Amino acid sequence: MLSCVKATTIHAPYDIRLSDVPDPTLLTPTDAIVRVTASCICGSDLWPYRGENPITEGSRIGHEFVGIVEETGSEVASVKAGDFVIAPFMYSDNTCPHCREGVQSACSTGGFWGGPDRDERMVDGGQGEYVRVPLADGTLVATPSVPDESQVASLLTLSDVMGTGWHAAVAAQVTKGDTVVVVGDGAVGLCGVLAAHRMGAERVIAMSRHASRQTIAREFGASDVVELRGEAGVAAVLELTDGVGADAVLECVGTGQAMTTAIEVARPGSMVGYVGVPHGVELPVRTMFARNVGVAGGVAPVREYLPQLRDDVLSGEIDPGLVFDLEIPLSEVAEGYGAMHERRAIKTMLRP
Amino acid sequence: MLSCVKATTIHAPYDIRLSDVPDPTLLTPTDAIVRVTASCICGSDLWPYRGENPITEGSRIGHEFVGIVEETGSEVASVKAGDFVIAPFMYSDNTCPHCREGVQSACSTGGFWGGPDRDERMVDGGQGEYVRVPLADGTLVATPSVPDESQVASLLTLSDVMGTGWHAAVAAQVTKGDTVVVVGDGAVGLCGVLAAHRMGAERVIAMSRHASRQTIAREFGASDVVELRGEAGVAAVLELTDGVGADAVLECVGTGQAMTTAIEVARPGSMVGYVGVPHGVELPVRTMFARNVGVAGGVAPVREYLPQLRDDVLSGEIDPGLVFDLEIPLSEVAEGYGAMHERRAIKTMLRP
Repeated sequence: MLSCVKATTIHAPYDIRLSDVPDPTLLTPTDAIVRVTASCICGSDLWPYRGENPITEGSRIGHEFVGIVEETGSEVASVKAGDFVIAPFMYSDNTCPHCREGVQSACSTGGFWGGPDRDERMVDGGQGEYVRVPLADGTLVATPSVPDESQVASLLTLSDVMGTGWHAAVAAQVTKGDTVVVVGDGAVGLCGVLAAHRMGAERVIAMSRHASRQTIAREFGASDVVELRGEAGVAAVLELTDGVGADAVLECVGTGQAMTTAIEVARPGSMVGYVGVPHGVELPVRTMFARNVGVAGGVAPVREYLPQLRDDVLSGEIDPGLVFDLEIPLSEVAEGYGAMHERRAIKTMLRP
Repeated sequence: MLSCVKATTIHAPYDIRLSDVPDPTLLTPTDAIVRVTASCICGSDLWPYRGENPITEGSRIGHEFVGIVEETGSEVASVKAGDFVIAPFMYSDNTCPHCREGVQSACSTGGFWGGPDRDERMVDGGQGEYVRVPLADGTLVATPSVPDESQVASLLTLSDVMGTGWHAAVAAQVTKGDTVVVVGDGAVGLCGVLAAHRMGAERVIAMSRHASRQTIAREFGASDVVELRGEAGVAAVLELTDGVGADAVLECVGTGQAMTTAIEVARPGSMVGYVGVPHGVELPVRTMFARNVGVAGGVAPVREYLPQLRDDVLSGEIDPGLVFDLEIPLSEVAEGYGAMHERRAIKTMLRP
């Protein structure tokens, strides 16, 4: 039925290829096969691309995709052939204690795309023509009908960056009327601005020094932009907040400097929500203690937020798809990685 | 009017004396003079006692006291001569942005007992016969009438340990029905057990290996006691929680081992509320990120919790005074320090 199936594979640093891969087949009764209609490249895909993470030569890559269900296993009940579905960046059963608590990223039986599952079966990556989706009922979220083409980009962000920005805002306990600072102007940081605005923040201060990203931040609801970094950036935020600091801070980078800035601009009693995978971050526990500034966050349970964010996209309430500034055919995926790596693109969408 | 006024002073490690000090007088219109009817010794007083914190020879010490207002400055409106009042372990104006946010421990004009205020005037310590209270309106909380002698011990805990245990539970986001772990069985940890129980936790697991403290923990609402520490303690808690971990964790010690234990027994998506002043704590940010375990807490804003906790004590809802297991006259204060230092007492109350 399926033939000449293609998927993105990684072979060595800076060696990304579109390769022939076996036809997807249902391996368990809880699987579904999804024909990918849009996928994208994540900042975290650049770690193996740059050789900063170990690479299994020839392994599949990518973890953000939307598409049409082609086939379902006998135990799949929540999606059916023909459905448009959004896949979170991790698959999950959505029934274990962690999933029921809304932390699907800690699912007892779930895992990451492109790696082995708990039975050592390899799971497909998302940057391909087809994906076998394990635990389809717990993983996929369908739209009521196949959405308009104009909504695909925004729905695709719910796979990762919008859900991750949302998680930062949840972890930072953003509430209506708050003054919020967002550290980081990558796709996740920009989505964090949108999340804080959607949650009713009165003021959203985006820390960004790239004009194109500032423009999106303002479209997403940023009321202020601070271009300075480090101590000067902290001083600028404190001046904007009458010396008090922010009611909530979103740390969307993952570096030591970003976390330091985040903690220093947070007012006493507030939370830093962090979703940037920590690289070289040392939490200053005595400063945090003295100032009563907490930190929370981690690998975002985007599955938890997907139904609500899907509805927000479909109603036109939010339009996170603006973070895509490059769209190319899947066949040019290697160029897509290059563009992200060289910062010529904020985020690259891949179409079949 | 006042003569032969005594107060506790510290002169060198292990050198605590009851000394003659000047009569207390109102220095500003916002001051009040309080005649101390009960004070106590804090675990944190033991740091200078043991020489682990620098000592200013002859300086006043103590930060937990209750008493009767003797005299008030012309601008004091909320308390009057004859009132029974509880003093938090920090004084605060209760009007600055941080106080209004409920973080009086970050008050813009407040500070610590026994140290210099912002105008370099020395503030009295709490272990004495009289205390000049700065910012009396923002600091002191009165009871509707002079309480029964049987309630004094519990009201005195609201100066610090009960409010601090409460802060740990607030920071850990304890909610009704939760399974809560409390790491630490000092006076604060025991009060943390009481706080979690009062907030409706269904199950409170106290980590304690001292029989006398376990008894109090159970009286305060602990449903389970884990005597093991380190990895064995973590394993025991995980076994008690079906491998899931706790919904909320209170870290009431401040050591690296206590924090590690707290983070490891916390279920994904939960918070560790920490109030033990960190000594040698390194927060494992990558583990926290991978597991979505947050930390929050710090110097407790006990002033914020005082009105509610006062009402809970007066109504008999809570009886935190059980943490006092030694009561001695102020004249024997040096022996009180010795008893705490040698762990012969959990907490020592001093009476005039």
